[in-house]
Amino acid sequence: MSGLTSTSLKRALLGRAFATEDLSRERLPKRLALPTFASDALSAVAYAPDEILLTLAIAGVTAYTVSPWVALAVVALMAVVVTANRHNVQEYPDGGGDYRVVQDNLGQRAGRAVGAALLVDYVLTVAVAISQAANYASGGLPFLHGWEPWIAIGLIVLVTLVNLRGVRESGRALAVPVYLFMGSLGLLLLAGGVQALTGQIGAAPSAGLEIVPDAAFDQGLTALGGAFLVLRAFSSGCAALTGVEAVGNGVPSFRPPKSRNAATTLVILGALSSVFILGIILLAGATGVRYVADPATQLTREGAPVVDYQQIPVIAQIAQAVFAPASPLFYLVLISTGVVLFLAANTAFNGFPNLASALARSRHLPRQLRLRGDRLAYSNGILMLSLASIVLVWVTGADVSLLIQMYIVGVFVSFSLAQLGMTIHFTRQLRVTTDGAQRRRIARRRVVNAFAFVVVTVVLVIVLLTRFLQGAWVAVLAMVLLWLLMTAVSSHYRRVRAELALPADQVDPVSLPSRSHALVLVASLDRPTMRALAVASATRPTTIEAIIVDDEDVDWRAVADRWRDLDVQIPLRILYAPYRQFSAPVLAHVMNLLSRSPRDEVVVYIPEFLVGHWWEALLHNHSARRLRARLEHLPRVVVATVPWQLGSAQEAMDQVQDEVRSLALRGRGRAR
Amino acid sequence: MSGLTSTSLKRALLGRAFATEDLSRERLPKRLALPTFASDALSAVAYAPDEILLTLAIAGVTAYTVSPWVALAVVALMAVVVTANRHNVQEYPDGGGDYRVVQDNLGQRAGRAVGAALLVDYVLTVAVAISQAANYASGGLPFLHGWEPWIAIGLIVLVTLVNLRGVRESGRALAVPVYLFMGSLGLLLLAGGVQALTGQIGAAPSAGLEIVPDAAFDQGLTALGGAFLVLRAFSSGCAALTGVEAVGNGVPSFRPPKSRNAATTLVILGALSSVFILGIILLAGATGVRYVADPATQLTREGAPVVDYQQIPVIAQIAQAVFAPASPLFYLVLISTGVVLFLAANTAFNGFPNLASALARSRHLPRQLRLRGDRLAYSNGILMLSLASIVLVWVTGADVSLLIQMYIVGVFVSFSLAQLGMTIHFTRQLRVTTDGAQRRRIARRRVVNAFAFVVVTVVLVIVLLTRFLQGAWVAVLAMVLLWLLMTAVSSHYRRVRAELALPADQVDPVSLPSRSHALVLVASLDRPTMRALAVASATRPTTIEAIIVDDEDVDWRAVADRWRDLDVQIPLRILYAPYRQFSAPVLAHVMNLLSRSPRDEVVVYIPEFLVGHWWEALLHNHSARRLRARLEHLPRVVVATVPWQLGSAQEAMDQVQDEVRSLALRGRGRAR
Repeated sequence: MSGLTSTSLKRALLGRAFATEDLSRERLPKRLALPTFASDALSAVAYAPDEILLTLAIAGVTAYTVSPWVALAVVALMAVVVTANRHNVQEYPDGGGDYRVVQDNLGQRAGRAVGAALLVDYVLTVAVAISQAANYASGGLPFLHGWEPWIAIGLIVLVTLVNLRGVRESGRALAVPVYLFMGSLGLLLLAGGVQALTGQIGAAPSAGLEIVPDAAFDQGLTALGGAFLVLRAFSSGCAALTGVEAVGNGVPSFRPPKSRNAATTLVILGALSSVFILGIILLAGATGVRYVADPATQLTREGAPVVDYQQIPVIAQIAQAVFAPASPLFYLVLISTGVVLFLAANTAFNGFPNLASALARSRHLPRQLRLRGDRLAYSNGILMLSLASIVLVWVTGADVSLLIQMYIVGVFVSFSLAQLGMTIHFTRQLRVTTDGAQRRRIARRRVVNAFAFVVVTVVLVIVLLTRFLQGAWVAVLAMVLLWLLMTAVSSHYRRVRAELALPADQVDPVSLPSRSHALVLVASLDRPTMRALAVASATRPTTIEAIIVDDEDVDWRAVADRWRDLDVQIPLRILYAPYRQFSAPVLAHVMNLLSRSPRDEVVVYIPEFLVGHWWEALLHNHSARRLRARLEHLPRVVVATVPWQLGSAQEAMDQVQDEVRSLALRGRGRAR
Repeated sequence: MSGLTSTSLKRALLGRAFATEDLSRERLPKRLALPTFASDALSAVAYAPDEILLTLAIAGVTAYTVSPWVALAVVALMAVVVTANRHNVQEYPDGGGDYRVVQDNLGQRAGRAVGAALLVDYVLTVAVAISQAANYASGGLPFLHGWEPWIAIGLIVLVTLVNLRGVRESGRALAVPVYLFMGSLGLLLLAGGVQALTGQIGAAPSAGLEIVPDAAFDQGLTALGGAFLVLRAFSSGCAALTGVEAVGNGVPSFRPPKSRNAATTLVILGALSSVFILGIILLAGATGVRYVADPATQLTREGAPVVDYQQIPVIAQIAQAVFAPASPLFYLVLISTGVVLFLAANTAFNGFPNLASALARSRHLPRQLRLRGDRLAYSNGILMLSLASIVLVWVTGADVSLLIQMYIVGVFVSFSLAQLGMTIHFTRQLRVTTDGAQRRRIARRRVVNAFAFVVVTVVLVIVLLTRFLQGAWVAVLAMVLLWLLMTAVSSHYRRVRAELALPADQVDPVSLPSRSHALVLVASLDRPTMRALAVASATRPTTIEAIIVDDEDVDWRAVADRWRDLDVQIPLRILYAPYRQFSAPVLAHVMNLLSRSPRDEVVVYIPEFLVGHWWEALLHNHSARRLRARLEHLPRVVVATVPWQLGSAQEAMDQVQDEVRSLALRGRGRAR
């Protein structure tokens, strides 16, 4: 059967199953926790400065002068968010992040909104980080230029397989590339800074080019249009704040004192991000980087359009200027940045399925998402994220600038609701706290979160205003649809639960039917039929009948003759099928039996074949399957499938039994 | 559920179900039998002459002089086949045609070969006839030119729907267009003949054009190449013989004396076809028709390539010459020919499913093909034919000349094997016949069939030699694959049958299990669970247990507490699932129970939900379905599904019950 081939394929790709107890209980010290949670947040420095410069370039190169101020605004926002988020970490030490905070303080609807927003943003994290990683790949290996979308899709497939295999997060293994990235970027900024201060800094490869400003900005940054453009650049820079929420989700993995260590890590992370972004923007200015959305139309060399020019990411350009093109240090920066971008996508592949599982456990999403697969990963969630991000990369052609327009709306929706939630959380605490000193402390903390709420909400509005038409509407639409879906799923599960609940006055829960009629479906007189008759007889039903449907194919007379010859002690009834519908006469007969008493019950025994190959399955069981599906539409009917294993199914049977035995043995080997 | 929507759609397209007794028992007199079985054979005159001329045109216009001789050869072959086939009709008056003759006299393998050959040829009949019908449509309505493949596919969909609706063959309704075709074509030949003899005949639209011969034939028809080309033209003309076997299939529908009437009809049909083909070829010569495969390269006007020239079929060209372009009689010929081509495809839509059903009844094909659908037609066979012919038309671009290359291989395989079968049939008769006069009569008849066998086999070889590389290999390949498939299916069914047969020494057929263990699957303590417990208890099993699987999701402690509170009298067992596989622990437990005694049996009761909408189905039953599928891999296990109908399923339930009731009522209204 196909189930078995797919099982073998699964084992080859994913390896053997892991037991639940294998789930890592590792507790991370700060020096390992930082790299574990940092890749998402730090990787943003590989595209946020690029997007700031690219947006400002619309108003020409003079607009670049405001880029440090934009970067400073991002850093200020980072300070506010990190400060406020320390409270989330401290108050919710069990993890769960913003979803938990909002669900607890603002209720289910808001919880679903955060869920939808974050799920959409995880998809965008993957799409943006992987697309930019593809740009880094083609930046180092120019012959890959033009193949970025395929590289990106290949990387997504890779990260999907890695996560389906469920390679358990090892802080140690992740620490190496992340510290390498921090080190190489730190070295770049340090060397570049010294060169700049001593006036010895080189020029970026794009330094000699001129930027053609958009017709609307031929006067540079002016009045309303200029302000709007600066706000857009700021919006793009805010991408640097994504990934901060990862620490909130990961609190349980920290070494005690968990909350304090997590909060400290958060501060270090914020500080590092800030330094990197500011440093890159300043060095981009010092090396004369020109970065635009469409080099073919926006860049000129001595007045003439550039030809054959491949624009590479800002960090790569600075590294060429500070170190040398094709120098080992240049490649170190390039490769470590690419790897960190890949790890950022990997973080999303951890976050999305965990969040989806939490949402499924709260019955906002289908229950298939809630369980871990063989390798302890939430496989269904991983596959959904993979599929969604591949579609996104494919549709946008791995265009980071376009993807960025849809990005971070979700993160800021989540920030905003979470800070509101924290404000309410502290308000509630105030209500039950009487101690003066403690009240003052709580009130102080509430001010921070309330302030952060206002700030991030303003930023959210700015982000929406400056990007809605550019692409954010896609993200908003996806969130709304997801929210509606979750609402529908949630209300469906609630309705079903109410419908199935036992009545409050339940006394005798197991009320037996007054009479039970057994019907055994017969097509010919063979071993499976005999087995079904035996099974039915063993249940000692009130009445028992074998039934045969007189469709064109069955030779019921031959069966009836043989029945008499063998002296079978169970009556055989022939059901006439004037419309050749195999199931209709059986259903009519069952309805007739049931109509005699409202407490009677009918059990229909259907012999079914288990075959060894998928193509054999095409040759059997069709009438039986259809009948079973239609019998489910009658109340007070039970359908008993009496499987008969054909010889060809032996291998499949052995395989299933071996698998069960081996799992049982392995399970027994463990202390429970 | 989707099943219900599809049912409504089905009713709208196909109408209400017919009862088996509605099957027509109509007996046709010769004047109605002729048109009923004639359309396939007669329609060949709408493309066979075209293909003769088109093939000869390769050697230039001078080669057209041999066309009457080629037509005469076809007529001679027709005489042989018709004479020999009269014996088939007389000896097999119960119908079944060549398949029956071969199966009876040459065995299963040869029977399967005829089956495969005829199935492939039915597909080609549809493709050729409908493609040519599309050519007639664009011949009458030139703005349709270029859209022929789409017209052809549209016509196939139409004939498919007509046949799925199962409009019962009414000799009377079919008689009108067929007699109209015979009449109009007869009128054309008569009028054209008179005009030709009186020297007043007009010129065909293509008469003024020159044919550019292929480089290999710039000397006209010479030596080996020329002989080969004439044989190819003859092969194409042999298409006129398809459809003769339809009479053999239809013998039971004739009015008594069945065999004699069928034989007479066969002779009339052969004579009509012969007259038409010869007449068309002669008139094509008289009106100067030029007909080639590719007008753009093969035709010139005064030395220059023709532009904007639309080549129309030969009959249409003659009709333009004899009547007048755009005259009512021209359109009558065009339309009646198009309709007869459509009816020829319709005949195949009758023949293919009947043959497939006969093959399925002999267990050479899957059993789904053997049953009539709601409207008494063999729906699965109809759909297969429709799909195959649409693919063929689409791939070949409705190119009749290309399709013709694949055509008639199957028919001649069938003719050849059938004549061999008849020869053997008479040889066997001779063995048991002693009467001298009768022996001589049988021996005479055997000579005819043996001669026909030699002739059609030679023609088959010619057809294969002249066309194999041109396209016949596709048909041969399809036949071989189909034959292999049927062999595999046949041996599978035979193997299963042997495996399932009761032992010859069966005494007590119903041997009860010594002990029966009931397991009830529990996920929470609700009404479906209670119902499953009640159903299981009612069967009075030897032991009964409720089992709950401790996967991450189920709160088994809460269920256990409630179990105690409600004082349920059935023990609850918690199964630990270290690998989160819901089914593995259940299977392990079942295997453990079964290992205690080889005559014990386990019945697993699984509550399942019936929902009202397909999307609700995504939210339920997954673990249950998977468990059921895997339980089928254990011997001595019965799976009892205890369906629980959710409120949303009420409509679906009502619909199924109403349908069953209405069928039952209608069934009751009939005398049985």
